[in-house]
Amino acid sequence: MRQLFELCGENRDVRFSPYCWRARLALKHKGLEFDSVPITFLEKQPLENASSKTVPVLNDDGTWVKESFDIACYLDDTYADKPLFGSADARAQGVVLNDWLNRTLLLGLFPMIVADIHRHLDAKNAAYFRDTREKFLGCTLEDAQGTRAERLAPFRKSLSPLRAGLRANDYLSGDAPAWLDYAAFGTFMWVHLASDFEPLEADDPLYDWRERMFDLFDGYGRGMPRAV
Amino acid sequence: MRQLFELCGENRDVRFSPYCWRARLALKHKGLEFDSVPITFLEKQPLENASSKTVPVLNDDGTWVKESFDIACYLDDTYADKPLFGSADARAQGVVLNDWLNRTLLLGLFPMIVADIHRHLDAKNAAYFRDTREKFLGCTLEDAQGTRAERLAPFRKSLSPLRAGLRANDYLSGDAPAWLDYAAFGTFMWVHLASDFEPLEADDPLYDWRERMFDLFDGYGRGMPRAV
Repeated sequence: MRQLFELCGENRDVRFSPYCWRARLALKHKGLEFDSVPITFLEKQPLENASSKTVPVLNDDGTWVKESFDIACYLDDTYADKPLFGSADARAQGVVLNDWLNRTLLLGLFPMIVADIHRHLDAKNAAYFRDTREKFLGCTLEDAQGTRAERLAPFRKSLSPLRAGLRANDYLSGDAPAWLDYAAFGTFMWVHLASDFEPLEADDPLYDWRERMFDLFDGYGRGMPRAV
Repeated sequence: MRQLFELCGENRDVRFSPYCWRARLALKHKGLEFDSVPITFLEKQPLENASSKTVPVLNDDGTWVKESFDIACYLDDTYADKPLFGSADARAQGVVLNDWLNRTLLLGLFPMIVADIHRHLDAKNAAYFRDTREKFLGCTLEDAQGTRAERLAPFRKSLSPLRAGLRANDYLSGDAPAWLDYAAFGTFMWVHLASDFEPLEADDPLYDWRERMFDLFDGYGRGMPRAV
């Protein structure tokens, strides 16, 4: 039995967490079947087994693993076929890139969609989300999202390293997608599922790459239920 | 015959280019002997063979390669032993990291040491450097370097992805140094050779890592002639 615990909205079919998408796509890359278990921000019960207060959490037949990066490493260590990282230095570089992605791509997008995310939660989770996220942002969710227009140009500029990767190779990981592609694309899936906001320009090489990532696994990402 | 063309200051023993250090350390990693050929900003003659206006340029017995990243790839493709990148995805991730390093680490440090670099050039090269770099910076070299104090805190913060890497592993590339370590350390060599400015705090994990990088190859970096 393999279970992936994932964040959901009021519509429990909407699984919008960027971190959960990284784990989900890592499982798809490996060709491993899994049951998705939706939980809201306030449903922490099943995660006690993993000593985790956040999702994703993987239960691989009794082995509990938390954190999307550690789940990717666990999957490579346990199921050697179709590696997410091709070498030890790729994995070590991944730690550096993971921190950069979280700070630049994910935290760059967060204020631009935060009120949209809030809109798709049930009343209790919406209150929890507003309280914790407004403390983090130092302003209301609506005020944060209201800065979208001025944030957009510097955000797009900050993605230059990803564009450099796509000038050299078809995917961020080379000729075919691997961990870095899933980590970056998972963040765009979050935006796609929770918001109708378009952060990329149509002539951005990242736009075309994102389209190709949507197409993977028979259009897996494209077919997912959206909150919008 | 293997030659590495490298930037030098008025004292031709001072080889301070961060890009050249990346190539130099890649050769050291491979255990490959080479002759270093010092050239100033204005001495472009030997580089015509590589169709390059910048250094480093490698002449590997008649095969000319330019750009530090491409030199690392060439060395891995030509001399398989002691890889700088352990897999194709590590190399592809390297393209992304190279762009990030250049924009964040290198361009972050540049205004903080730019007047120090200028001081160590001969008159003609100093004039060329001032003219081109002041156009790039939009202010005098001295005014740029005068912003050091206010630039330092955000610069240190911007290195968070490297610290994340060092929390997980001894080196940025894992258990032992490889391309990412040399690319980042080459940039610190530039500061060390051209300036007495210390960008890192003593309790920063990057400080300890840099000490260990100085120690590599029998203290190779530590023993290099400085301009200061």
